[in-house]
Formats: sequence, structure tokens, C-alpha cells
Amino acid sequence: MKIVTGSGFIPGELLAKINSPDDLKKLSEEQLVQISSELRQYIIDLVSVKGGHFGASLGVVELTVALHYIFNTPYDQLVWDVGHQAYGHKIITGRRDVFHTNRIYKGISGFPKRSESIYDTFGVGHSSTSISAALGMAVASKYKNLKDKHHIAVIGDGAMTAGLAFEGLNHAGVENANLLVVLNDNCMSIDPNVGALKEYLTDITTSHTYNKAKDKVWDLLGKISKFGPNAQEIASKVENAVKTSLLKQSNLFESLKFRYFGPVDGHDVVRLTKVLADLKDIPGPKLLHVLTKKGKGYKFSEEGNETVWHSPGLFNKETGEIIKVIPKTPQPPKYQDVFGHTMVELAEKNDKITGITPAMPSGCSLNIMMKAMPDRAFDVGIAEQHAVTFSAGLATQGLVPYCNIYSSFMQRAYDQVLHDVALQNLKVVFCLDRGGLAGADGPTHHGAYDLAYFRCIPNMIVSAPMNEEELRNLMYTAQLDEVTGPFSIRYPRGNGVMVNWKTPFKKIEIGKGRKVKDGKDIAILSIGHPGNLVSTALELLKEQGIEPAHYDMRFAKPIDTALLHEVFSTFDKVITVEDGCIVGGMGSAVVEFMADNSYSANVVRLGIPDKFIEHGEQTELYKECGFSPEDIAATVVETLHKKEITRVKQA
Amino acid sequence: MKIVTGSGFIPGELLAKINSPDDLKKLSEEQLVQISSELRQYIIDLVSVKGGHFGASLGVVELTVALHYIFNTPYDQLVWDVGHQAYGHKIITGRRDVFHTNRIYKGISGFPKRSESIYDTFGVGHSSTSISAALGMAVASKYKNLKDKHHIAVIGDGAMTAGLAFEGLNHAGVENANLLVVLNDNCMSIDPNVGALKEYLTDITTSHTYNKAKDKVWDLLGKISKFGPNAQEIASKVENAVKTSLLKQSNLFESLKFRYFGPVDGHDVVRLTKVLADLKDIPGPKLLHVLTKKGKGYKFSEEGNETVWHSPGLFNKETGEIIKVIPKTPQPPKYQDVFGHTMVELAEKNDKITGITPAMPSGCSLNIMMKAMPDRAFDVGIAEQHAVTFSAGLATQGLVPYCNIYSSFMQRAYDQVLHDVALQNLKVVFCLDRGGLAGADGPTHHGAYDLAYFRCIPNMIVSAPMNEEELRNLMYTAQLDEVTGPFSIRYPRGNGVMVNWKTPFKKIEIGKGRKVKDGKDIAILSIGHPGNLVSTALELLKEQGIEPAHYDMRFAKPIDTALLHEVFSTFDKVITVEDGCIVGGMGSAVVEFMADNSYSANVVRLGIPDKFIEHGEQTELYKECGFSPEDIAATVVETLHKKEITRVKQA
Repeated sequence: MKIVTGSGFIPGELLAKINSPDDLKKLSEEQLVQISSELRQYIIDLVSVKGGHFGASLGVVELTVALHYIFNTPYDQLVWDVGHQAYGHKIITGRRDVFHTNRIYKGISGFPKRSESIYDTFGVGHSSTSISAALGMAVASKYKNLKDKHHIAVIGDGAMTAGLAFEGLNHAGVENANLLVVLNDNCMSIDPNVGALKEYLTDITTSHTYNKAKDKVWDLLGKISKFGPNAQEIASKVENAVKTSLLKQSNLFESLKFRYFGPVDGHDVVRLTKVLADLKDIPGPKLLHVLTKKGKGYKFSEEGNETVWHSPGLFNKETGEIIKVIPKTPQPPKYQDVFGHTMVELAEKNDKITGITPAMPSGCSLNIMMKAMPDRAFDVGIAEQHAVTFSAGLATQGLVPYCNIYSSFMQRAYDQVLHDVALQNLKVVFCLDRGGLAGADGPTHHGAYDLAYFRCIPNMIVSAPMNEEELRNLMYTAQLDEVTGPFSIRYPRGNGVMVNWKTPFKKIEIGKGRKVKDGKDIAILSIGHPGNLVSTALELLKEQGIEPAHYDMRFAKPIDTALLHEVFSTFDKVITVEDGCIVGGMGSAVVEFMADNSYSANVVRLGIPDKFIEHGEQTELYKECGFSPEDIAATVVETLHKKEITRVKQA
Repeated sequence: MKIVTGSGFIPGELLAKINSPDDLKKLSEEQLVQISSELRQYIIDLVSVKGGHFGASLGVVELTVALHYIFNTPYDQLVWDVGHQAYGHKIITGRRDVFHTNRIYKGISGFPKRSESIYDTFGVGHSSTSISAALGMAVASKYKNLKDKHHIAVIGDGAMTAGLAFEGLNHAGVENANLLVVLNDNCMSIDPNVGALKEYLTDITTSHTYNKAKDKVWDLLGKISKFGPNAQEIASKVENAVKTSLLKQSNLFESLKFRYFGPVDGHDVVRLTKVLADLKDIPGPKLLHVLTKKGKGYKFSEEGNETVWHSPGLFNKETGEIIKVIPKTPQPPKYQDVFGHTMVELAEKNDKITGITPAMPSGCSLNIMMKAMPDRAFDVGIAEQHAVTFSAGLATQGLVPYCNIYSSFMQRAYDQVLHDVALQNLKVVFCLDRGGLAGADGPTHHGAYDLAYFRCIPNMIVSAPMNEEELRNLMYTAQLDEVTGPFSIRYPRGNGVMVNWKTPFKKIEIGKGRKVKDGKDIAILSIGHPGNLVSTALELLKEQGIEPAHYDMRFAKPIDTALLHEVFSTFDKVITVEDGCIVGGMGSAVVEFMADNSYSANVVRLGIPDKFIEHGEQTELYKECGFSPEDIAATVVETLHKKEITRVKQA
């Protein structure tokens, strides 16, 4: 990691001295309020200028300070769920002076990462892993007889809705290991949290039910008071009996054999330290319910839209104005917005269409449909598995669900896609946003594997549009009656290439690619958005008098065999380009075809190499992976000079 | 589907007339007891002779009768979770006379299946999908304004521990759709159920907490009775206040906004019909807690080991004796038992080793280690996702977890393998039992995709042993210090090939295959157990004077490039054989290598074709997929006669 020094950001007086949690522990209780304030200010200073996640980290400033103040990190294991709330944690664990490189190419990661710091006990990015991971750590410590070692998972109420969190709780409840789950309850994931659990948490927070019960008991027992002077005292005993025997059991987490504490105010840092200190002495699995506010302590995020302030981009910290660069000429839209608007257009024409997202309505722009057609678009919470099987259920009744899940999150619903949709050949349209290199979110969020992991699923149509028009037409095609099984459409994060994108719908023949450009000597086969990188490469090559042919495959499956016969009958040099792993991806489909049909050609496959790619701008990462326009052009030149295919013996 | 008539099994007097649920509805309430008894007897008659799942179906006989008696199936949608309990359902929905073909090649499936019957609303096999699927159906009906349509998910207490079930409950709680979840609580999945939820269900069943609280209230209020004659009456009111306000909230399912009913006796068919009839009139999400006993109504399964009677094989129905054919000569062991015994051997040598299984201790033989070393082997419940992330947590603390998950179930933990293990390069050993064609359990259980979906994961070592010795040595190699990241070992269901399998441990060099047999003209590359099919094929070919070379690749990743250079420098005809999907599998790795290294050869890839393969004996399915020994031999002959590779132009 390249450390950039001289950031120009000035920490507050106390924060300037905090180089590790050991320094934090030297502070008095009274100073904890000040250090919290300085930590918050430092985050505001940096994120307003450098960008990044915002609301979540502001919300846990006091909790972060309290945890490191009370627990013996890094010996004690602190696991942040998802991790975009861990900025404060990073700053006070030795990364204050490099924090301005956050999410920048070669800089520090926006998420906790084991290779970055010993304080980052578990790499995260996808939600709801913390309880299982921390339980594994706790069970290991139990096995090693390290009785003084603590293991803490900090998880949001949104992340708690995912099945993995529940599985972790269910196991933890019967392991007598030293595990503390801190439930950071801010009623939000990225979008406002949904589901029964959220309502339940609100219930216990406002204590409505308990208070009502208590009032009734008092009310009834009050009537008994005429029988004697001690009745109120007896009533108090009744209440205690009720409380200890029943209320304990009444808590969902107590049902799962956790000891439940709270709720406590997550912004009272001194109180938090006292509660945490007390909990250190309580063995076994326990849950502390902490109430926080996303964006806490910054006027504009506290008062503004929490989804917007989750990751606001750059902003003027004085005025709260989010800086939007308005380009002088119209720009191509984001692919996600093309998806969002097209959903409404299609759903207006076809009343069978429904939309499903697991907790990413603003991220995938299904919120456009949720607003326009609230009874036909569903945010099911952080629950990718359920999103897919729920879609399968809708499909059995003749509806046409469009289930939008980021490519990397789709990994979490792989069995459901295979077992519940593809095996039954149900017509579910999977829209995979963030297909390919996702940018600053890094390796946990790159959609690198979907072409490979979907391509091996029988019945599955695997497609990727090269531009907005193709996205619209693939979405249009997917709902036509002639499609009778699963249909996936993957597209990248960010903007497309067409300013005038709202073209009339046109059916795309399934399994058919298209020739983008005629050429000679060499053919380039691309799928999806990287076709545009090829187009740029072709312009570079034209200057050198090289004129490759370019084909947009559109489908990784079924692959266009007629097109491939044409290519392999015409060219003995072929380059494939995709924004996905080269192991098992579209390029592999091409070499499988070549082998199956006894063709022989030099085939060079460009794509994401067989390693995890770190964070950075998409253009930086294309370059790192070797399929930037310049790389493609260079590969063409190199391949043209490549020696002949090796063949052992001609029979 | 081939219908075999004249089965020779004679149904009881009433059952003989039941050709659909309509016939069932003609029966009087009193006759429901008799039909239940006859249905149970029919299942015993058939399964004892034909094999199949047993305990689960016996346990839900009354529930099955009651559900079809009360609900208007197939208009009302009945979803059986997992589905191995659906034998009674199949028999009374028109499949009585073909039921003897259950799980037999070309016969009916052992699980509900949409293509088999309109009464099978959702295909199942993997657990915990029913709530999400039924909710999808219910939401679709709500959208279509079909207010009279009911949607019922029948799910076991074991399946309820999986995250997917929780995700479904969490969403259902806030959708006002017509959904009934029947919780079939028998304290078992296949092995005894584990986890906090199980303990909770036991708690509410025995009503210990509630009774205790009630007793305390009575006790205390009893003391008030001296104050007047009405005190007991008042106490009763207090109790009611407590119950309605608190106990309602006290229930875990009520926490998730379900209305909870029960528990009720699942073997009292008349009572069940009354309860179900009442529930029809209650709108919104509701849960009925039904207590059943696996193996109910058959003396030997009721009294015997429930895990054994889950799927006992053939048995003498009169004596309860399970029929075991004792071979005259020693036989090779099951791969799973080699795994189980080897775990103990290795763990005795290396105190870092731990074992993890999600609810399959007897299925994968980790029960051997659980018995020998209870503090180092964990059954985490039906929770594949958690099993993997929990293993990752163990690995961060320097332990070496062996996480055993069936290949098809590993699909459910794909994101955890990628995100929590591989990305962090944590040393977790994945043992994938049931890799390849699983046999009678059919398409939901075939481990067809793991080589493809693991091969595209960076850092992952992907291996498969050809025999018991290789399995042991791969397991031994995986725990050596030189291995620093994830290591997967996949092997099939059933027996290996070595009688004397317990050979001394020997390190296998990672990424190195071996030459099994020298040969000429053509090379066969196999991975895993199908290498033995190749050996048999070679014997067949020898008779024809054909002598192919045979290589056991052992690793799909890293692939043995030195070996492949040797092969492609020597042979221009190559056949690959694997017990996995040919799209993206080991054969694809071979053709990727060929393309990357500019070799040219005729490569024929044998494996599971790109479609879902139905159930049958493994040998029948090898044949269907075209890689039985005879098929391999035929492919060799055909390939030897194959024409030359096509090459457009020689530069």
C-alpha cells in the first residue's frame, strides 16, 4: 500500500495524539465526549472533500470510541458488519494520516480488511457475516481456553434481516462462547429498513407492549387495593414475577438464548462505556441493543434524507450543499436508471411484470417503479435468497418478476437461482447491476464471476447489453411470451454511452450477437459494456492501419454458434473481451466452441484475471486487468505477430 | 414418465377409492382416522420393499389428510418444504398406482415436482424454500385479487433454522397476504435438530416458561385471596391481561408479526381438520405449530433410531429388521466413511483441526469425529452459509476447519466461500461430499456444478480424488503448513474402489496430476472417481488393441500445466472425463490451457451435459450422460477416426 503523506487534513487536539487504541485508553472519561466530537469532525472534513460512505460512520462515532476504550483490541476481536461504518475505527487504529486515500486506487480500503491492519479482524463488504465470524473466533478462543478474550460483532438492524445473521444467532445461542453482538439500530440499511424485524425493533424500543401490559396489571391490581394496604406492594411483586418470567422470554433474541440488554442511547459515550464494561463480566452470548442515528452530529445529514447521506459524494461542509457537476452537454444516463425507467414502461404495457429488490431500491433504481406502482414493486430487505425464491413463487402464478440484484450479491442466492428457478425452468428475469469491476467499493463488490457461475446453469439465458438501447431491448425481449425460462441481463455500475437512449423497444433474437464492424486479419468478440472499450481501441488501431472485425456477442449463453462458425471460418486470430473473470467466462465459451467444433485459431482471452482486484476507478482497473482500450489495441498488435498454432503431428 | 402398472401393492379399502383430493373430501370425519391408517400402511408396504424416505412421511400422514380435506387443492397452493415427507401427498393426489416407481430411473421423483403433478406447486429437495415460495404465490394472488385462494407452506423445525426461512418470515410479516405456515415440529431434520430455535420450540411446547409465570401469578394472587372472595376472579383477569398483552408478544413468530396458533397434536386428524378450517377464516400471515413424531405409527421406527429410520433402505415390515446384504468378500468403504475416519486420524495428529457440518453428521460421517472429539466437531444446523463463515472465523484464529457440505448444498454458501474465505485467503478445507451424480435423490441433489463454480474463484484449490487413498492424502495435504488458503476436495456419494484403503499418509504435490497408464494415439484426462470408469473403459479397449494413455488430473485448479504440455506435445486427440457439468468444468480448463498455449488438438469433453439430469442409479445416469465405461470406450474409437482440426489459413 502506498502511503500518501501530508494530507493537509488537521485533526483536533486530542485526535492528533491518537495513534492507536492504547492512546485512547489514556483519556479520561470526560475527554471521551471531546474525542468523539473531533473524530466526527475529521470524518466530515475528509468525506466532504474526498467522498465515501458518510452517514453510517457518523452514527457510530461514540460506539467506536467506547468499544476501543473498553475492550482490549486487537487482542479482543472486533468485527464490523458490512464495514462502511468503520471509518472512525480506521482513524483511531493507526490510519488517521492515510485516511484521505480512502477508496482511492492503491489507497486504503473503504471496508475493514485483514491485510490492512491487525485491528481489522475480518474483511467485510457484504452484510450480515459478523455474527458467524465472531462466533467462529469465540469458539476458537474457547477451544484454546482463552477465557479473557472478547469477541464483538457490531451489526446494523438492516443486516440483521439477512438469513446468515439468523443462522449465526441460532448457533451462537447454544454455544457457550464469549460473544457480544452489538445491534446498531438506526432503522436503516442504505434505504429505510423493511420487514417484520424492523417493526419489532421499533416495538421494543418504544416499549409499547410492555408498558401497556404493565399499565393493565397496575390498573387491575389497583382495584384490589380496597382489600388491604399491602396490595400495591403485592402488585409490584406480581409485576416482577411477570417481568422476570415472561418479559425475558418475550424478547426475540432471548428466544434464541441470547441475553438481551438495552436499548441504550448510542450517542451517550460515557453511558456506553459503562454498559460495555458491565457486559465484559457476563459470560456467554449476549446482545446489546444500541440506538443510533445515521448522520448524527452533522446538521445537514441529521435533517436530510438518510439514503442520500449514506454516500453523498462531495459536499460543502459549511452549507451542506452536495456538489453536483452539471455537464454542459447532455450525458448518457446510468445503466441503473435505464433499468428503473424501463421497468415502469414495460410494466405499463404488461400487467404481469413485477419488480423485486433486496434492500437496494435506490442503488438499482427500482425506487422509480416502487413510487409509480407500489403494489407491483417489492423491497424485501437484505435477503437475496428470499428475493429469488419469492420471485420463483410469483412466477409459478404466471407473473413475470424482474429480480434486480447486484452481481456480487447474487452470489448469495446462487442455490436459489439453480434450485428454485432454473431447475423448474421458471420465467424469472434476473437483472444484475454492478456486473464487472465496480470501482471504489473494491473486491467485495466487483461483479466478476456472474458470467461464469451463471453460464454453467442449464436453462439459463445469460446476456449483457453493450449500451442503453440493448439493455432496454433485452429487458423487453425477456418478458415476451416466447421466453419460458430464466433470463439474466447484466450491466455495469455507472453511465452508458447513449445520450438519446429512450429508443423504441425492439426484440433481440435470443442467442444472437451482431457484427459491430467488418474487418480483416483478426476478430474481436466482446460482451456487454466493454464492447465500447473495443470501439475506442479500434479507433486507436485505425491510425496504425489495422482493421479488426468486431462482434458484440450479447449472449454468453446460448452462445451464437452461427456467428462463431463465421468467425472461425474467416479468422485464425481471435480476441475475446469481457468485464468478468476469464476463468469460465464468455471467452471460455468461445474456446469450448472451438474445441467442440474442431476449429483451430489463436484465441486470446481478455477479462478479469484469476486474482482478486482491489478498489479504484473503473478506468484504472480496466488498465490493471489489461482490457483498457490501449491494452486491447496492444493485444491486437501482439496477436497479429503471434506465431502459428502448435500441432503435434498431422495424421 | 413411464408408468408401470400392476404394482402388486394393495391399498386399503378407502384408499383404493382415493384418486384425488376430491375423493378424500367425500369421506366423513370419522373415516379420516381410517384413511390415515391405510395411507400409513401403504407407505410402510411400499417403502419396506422399494426403499426411500420413511420417517418423515409417516410423521405427516394425518397432516397430509387434513390439509387436502380442508383446503381446495390444487387451487389452493400447498408447498411442502424439502419434500421427502410428501409421499402421502403423492399417493392421494393421483399417484397411488405409480408410487412403487418412486426414486427409480424414469419413475416418479422422491420429491414434489411441478412437471409431475398440478398438486406439486413447487419443486423442492433443498430445505427452507417453502415460506418464500408460498409467499410469492400469496402475493401474486393478492395482486390478482383472488381473495379466496389459500397458500400453505409445511416446514419442519429443522428447515426453520436456515436463513432463507427467516428471510421469508421477515418479509411475510409485513405483507398482508394469505399465508399459512404449518410448522411441523418433530425435533429432527435428518439428524436430531440443533440450535437455539430448537430449544425455544421445546420451551414453548412444554410451556415451561408460561406455566411458571402463570403459577407465580396464581401463587401471589392466592395470597391476596384473604382480602376477599373475588380475588381469584381478579387474578384470572390479571392473568388474561398478562397473556394477551405479553405472551402474544413473547412468541418468536409473533415478534415477526405472524399470528401464532398451537401447538396442536399432529396425529389427531379430526382435531387438525377443525383447526385448519378455523384458520381459513383468519386473514394475513399465520403460523400453526403442529407436533408430530417421525416414523409415527410403525412400532419399529417409533421406538428405533430416528436418523436410521429417516431413510432405512429395505426392511422386513413384520420384524422391523433392516435388510443389509452382507457381501462375502470385503468391500471398499464409502467415501464419506473414509472422510469420517480420516478426520479423527488427522485431528489426533494436528490439534488445530476442527470439523463442521450443517446438519449432515450422519450423511457425511462427521458423526465419527463428533463422538470421538465432541469439542472439535460442530453440527451447526441447516445453515450452510453460517457453516462457511463460522469456519472462516475459526481460521482467523489459526485453527484449520474442515467444512463438509454436500456439493449441491454448497451452492447455498457460494458467497460466503468467495467473500469470507477465498477473498481473505483463509485456510478452510472444503470437503464436498455427493460431488457428481447423486443417484436416486435426483436433480436437486446432483453435485453437478461445483468444479465450474469453484474453479472461477481466485485462491481456491479445486481437487478430486480418484480413490480412497487419494482422498486421504488430499485431506492430509490440505492441513500442511505450506497450504495457506482455501482447499476444496470433492468426492461422490457411495463406495470407493480400495478394500485396503487405510494407507499411510503421503503428501500430494498441489496442482500435480499423475499418469495412470502410458499409451498411444490418444490421451484420456480424468478427474476424481470417474477415473475408475476410464480404467474399465481401457480394459474394454485393450480387447480391441487400442491403448490410450490415461492421466488422473487430481486438480481442476491449479491445473497441472507440465502434464498438459506433455499431453498436448504428444497427442493430437484428447478426451476429458469428469462427473460434473461440461460447461466451465475441468474439460474447459483443459481447452482454456490449449488456447492460451496455442496448441491444437481434437478435444472431446465428457461430463454432465448442459441440462438437468433426473434421478436413477448412478450407473444409469453415467450412461445417460455419456461417460459410462462403454461410452468412454466408444468415444475413444470415434475420436480416433475423427477428421483433422479445421484451420482457416496457414499464415
